[in-house]
Amino acid sequence: MNEFKKIERIKKILGKNSSDVLIGIGDDAAVVRWKSSKLVVTTDCQVEDVHFSLRYAEPEEIGHRLLAVSLSDIAAMGAVPKVAVVSLAFPESIDDKFIEKMYRGMSALARKTGVEIVGGNLSASTAKAFFDLTLMAELDGQPMTRGGAKAGDFILCSGALGDSAAGFAALQKWGKAAKKKFPALTKAHLKPTPSAEFGVKLGKWATSCLDVSDGLSSELNHLSKAAKLAFVVQEALIPVSASAQKLGDVLGKDPLQWALHGGENYGLLFTVPREHLEKVQRLASECRVALHAIGMVAKRKPEVLLQNDAKTTRLLPKGWTHF
Amino acid sequence: MNEFKKIERIKKILGKNSSDVLIGIGDDAAVVRWKSSKLVVTTDCQVEDVHFSLRYAEPEEIGHRLLAVSLSDIAAMGAVPKVAVVSLAFPESIDDKFIEKMYRGMSALARKTGVEIVGGNLSASTAKAFFDLTLMAELDGQPMTRGGAKAGDFILCSGALGDSAAGFAALQKWGKAAKKKFPALTKAHLKPTPSAEFGVKLGKWATSCLDVSDGLSSELNHLSKAAKLAFVVQEALIPVSASAQKLGDVLGKDPLQWALHGGENYGLLFTVPREHLEKVQRLASECRVALHAIGMVAKRKPEVLLQNDAKTTRLLPKGWTHF
Repeated sequence: MNEFKKIERIKKILGKNSSDVLIGIGDDAAVVRWKSSKLVVTTDCQVEDVHFSLRYAEPEEIGHRLLAVSLSDIAAMGAVPKVAVVSLAFPESIDDKFIEKMYRGMSALARKTGVEIVGGNLSASTAKAFFDLTLMAELDGQPMTRGGAKAGDFILCSGALGDSAAGFAALQKWGKAAKKKFPALTKAHLKPTPSAEFGVKLGKWATSCLDVSDGLSSELNHLSKAAKLAFVVQEALIPVSASAQKLGDVLGKDPLQWALHGGENYGLLFTVPREHLEKVQRLASECRVALHAIGMVAKRKPEVLLQNDAKTTRLLPKGWTHF
Repeated sequence: MNEFKKIERIKKILGKNSSDVLIGIGDDAAVVRWKSSKLVVTTDCQVEDVHFSLRYAEPEEIGHRLLAVSLSDIAAMGAVPKVAVVSLAFPESIDDKFIEKMYRGMSALARKTGVEIVGGNLSASTAKAFFDLTLMAELDGQPMTRGGAKAGDFILCSGALGDSAAGFAALQKWGKAAKKKFPALTKAHLKPTPSAEFGVKLGKWATSCLDVSDGLSSELNHLSKAAKLAFVVQEALIPVSASAQKLGDVLGKDPLQWALHGGENYGLLFTVPREHLEKVQRLASECRVALHAIGMVAKRKPEVLLQNDAKTTRLLPKGWTHF
């Protein structure tokens, strides 16, 4: 199938655009009616054998994940996701069916979250597959940033931490068979659920926020550094799921390490003043998001401290970095 | 250098953002003040050994080109380019110096064209390098599209056609040494000059427009199909540069073939009603763009015809496709 036919097929999968999309796929660029006074934009990629392996990931999962990771970034800013463009480069070994399935996975999540895919680019690649997505969002109020935490704020996170890293460990160990053994963990890794709706509503109450893409230890250090305050976290409050605990037992690993340092965990990490805590808890239950208070912000020099009954230690960033 | 240090270095190269950039590089997403009621967006990539070869392309050239190809798409819509995000995935063999030089090339062109790079993503790659850029533009009037040509309109193009394809042929033949032998041609390929300013001003007068990224024959067929009219082009009017002519003589190739079918030629191809022709000519000379009338739109069934003294033949799309 040539490039133009591929594009026609993709257009069909994505379906009709809303009236806000003045020019969609097929021209030099897309034109979208913009109703907000701000544009929020993020870009992220999925690289074969870095972010996913064809050994275990289904094309639908890759498509879903490509959009989910950017939805998570947008949620962390409290913005409303609107349109995306997708740039794909892939070798001949990836056929039309694969790309179509990928678009189906992406499109299903896009519909759920009110995102329209309005353009993109298809390119050949001589080696691995590279998939990139740029997501644009509208924002009318103020964005949530990394630097606004105040002393006395609660530190909260959404979702179970470390499930994605645990799922990855299971996939590394058993390949596709891991999906049957540990469905919740592998799904957390391959088909993460971004907190899109929760992020938009949280914007009103949180003093700082980011998504836990690089791992809790790394992200806590970002927030602490940006706020110039200490972040004190209680080890016992860090949410480790029963599945991760079970996998830890099987593999002889401490699941707390996945929760502390595991990346690609697309929940939100944020700070909320005590007086807004109840509202945020109500919000989370409305959005069906699991909420966990894990510590407090303290008026001390910027560092992250991890406390348990026995001792207080510095939690250094050991999250995922590419280099 | 770790990821965070790399990002700090890149921020330095890009310099300070304007006051329209409320949040730039370093948070989950960028936040930009948006003053227009429309968002125009395009994404394009440069893949190693597909769009460029490290055998002859300098990092600065790759960075320049990454932005230039999207500027060309935005120019073809008549929009004003504003902000870009950049997603890079590259193997260990590409070092920090390379990435910095690449950003320098990109940044120089960005400054010239009023674009701010507000965010991006750095990722590892296990094989080739993959560079992607998404460019967002403001538009207040109507966009130029592919489908508006009317019978009697003039068909025009900006820049010499085929120089990029000729430059590519020279680079294939002589590697880096081609840059000394045929500087204008290799520059047209490696460091194309997009018609950014000209595109914005042309928006008022052109009835249809696109950029010649896939080659003249292919793009003429797009415009003809979209307008449901015949596009009749005079062979003698197709601009072939003296350098391309010279290279053709050396390689025993017909340079007209580069002009007709060569891709990655980032001039604009557009249609203008007779009564606006003079204005557009003035515009082109103001923007220092070489303008060439190459034919007319005719009220006949949609096809592209190429005429010379001897005969009229159908010009089929033979431009670059990836698949």
